[in-house]
Amino acid sequence: MKKVYSSRYDAPIIVLVRPQLAENIGMVARAMMNCGLSCLRLVTPREGPVSEKAVSASSGASVVLEEAQVFSTLPEALADVRFALSTTARLRDMTKPVMSPNPAVQKTARRILKGEKVAWIFGPERTGLENKDLMLSDGCVQIPLNPAHSSLNLSQAVLIMGYLWWSRSLKDQDLLVTGGAKAATKKELSLFLSALDARLEQAGYFAFPDKKERMQRNLHNIFERNNITSSELKTLYNILNIL
Amino acid sequence: MKKVYSSRYDAPIIVLVRPQLAENIGMVARAMMNCGLSCLRLVTPREGPVSEKAVSASSGASVVLEEAQVFSTLPEALADVRFALSTTARLRDMTKPVMSPNPAVQKTARRILKGEKVAWIFGPERTGLENKDLMLSDGCVQIPLNPAHSSLNLSQAVLIMGYLWWSRSLKDQDLLVTGGAKAATKKELSLFLSALDARLEQAGYFAFPDKKERMQRNLHNIFERNNITSSELKTLYNILNIL
Repeated sequence: MKKVYSSRYDAPIIVLVRPQLAENIGMVARAMMNCGLSCLRLVTPREGPVSEKAVSASSGASVVLEEAQVFSTLPEALADVRFALSTTARLRDMTKPVMSPNPAVQKTARRILKGEKVAWIFGPERTGLENKDLMLSDGCVQIPLNPAHSSLNLSQAVLIMGYLWWSRSLKDQDLLVTGGAKAATKKELSLFLSALDARLEQAGYFAFPDKKERMQRNLHNIFERNNITSSELKTLYNILNIL
Repeated sequence: MKKVYSSRYDAPIIVLVRPQLAENIGMVARAMMNCGLSCLRLVTPREGPVSEKAVSASSGASVVLEEAQVFSTLPEALADVRFALSTTARLRDMTKPVMSPNPAVQKTARRILKGEKVAWIFGPERTGLENKDLMLSDGCVQIPLNPAHSSLNLSQAVLIMGYLWWSRSLKDQDLLVTGGAKAATKKELSLFLSALDARLEQAGYFAFPDKKERMQRNLHNIFERNNITSSELKTLYNILNIL
């Protein structure tokens, strides 16, 4: 595995408490690798991290499974952790900070920046975390979902949190990608539009002089707003020449 | 299914092009329901939407499968769609706007607000979308992931986009949740701290008068910053009385 972080503790530790299905452990490893997380801790899993089913479900992320640590109790798994958040769908009768995923990611990043180990705790598939588990965390994360159907697969909960972690400091991208081609200069476009106008004039398209300006404006606008490339303009020139 | 939206077109249509595995179709339906998406279109799936495997993998989201539409070609699946985005890991040699998930969600929301149908197109598991599919979309969405391990399961790609869609207008939450208990008033806390100070004074804790103020400040601070509730204060009073 290419190490994306300088240390495996530069990202939150994923702690799975009593996971039931080996496939889910594998899929969690895959989701972790997708999101640059590498440190996995398991508390009394029904099957160990490198079972055949887990490795198969990890789709190439088996290094996360091989390096996973197994603990007998959650307190042992959290012994060196200074900030722990539990993910939970249900609120228990307990006084805890409850936050949505983005503030959880931000708090996690700030603690890690201070050099502290942070854990995100996920409960067993069917039952979720028990009160004695939730007790040990500094706060709870609730992932907001359609209340009519809010049950998430374990690996999907890890994926949502992991994705928000991975993308937390990425700038949104919204660009025209041209596969090496260059956007046409306004001069190139203007020359093409003049050639188009001349060809249309010749063909009698501008039959009504008082509408000509408006017709030209509408037509030019189609091309002006279209981010056309130089090579696409050449294609259009060629078409114009053979029509 | 409780309808979360007034119409199934108040959210993007999910279009799966040539999906290979029935399980993936089912898991996509589950992820869609999690995120309030209900309109699923399939282009020449290997198995139909209501296969046993798909229904089983949908974990109770079979209504999405039952209402899914099957088309022979992508142009047919997009016939009534006015804005389509393709998700793709690879950039093809094509001039297209490429954006990250958040701008894609924002553009989608704006088009839907105008009453237009919007589609998000996902390709086959192994190969992704072909150029002839990408051609038909207004832009491409790239989900940023760990470049060392960026392959996502089909349903996980749908989940990430769906989660960002579902949570796009939710305010981040970061609250102390007290399970019905009320945060202590500052007066209640101050009375408790006075009782604690008196008890400690009596026990000889403040042996060095010049350090007393600092010791008190440090001790009080533990409780002041702790968002303690009225009933938790009563617990502490009781403890103080029996020690």
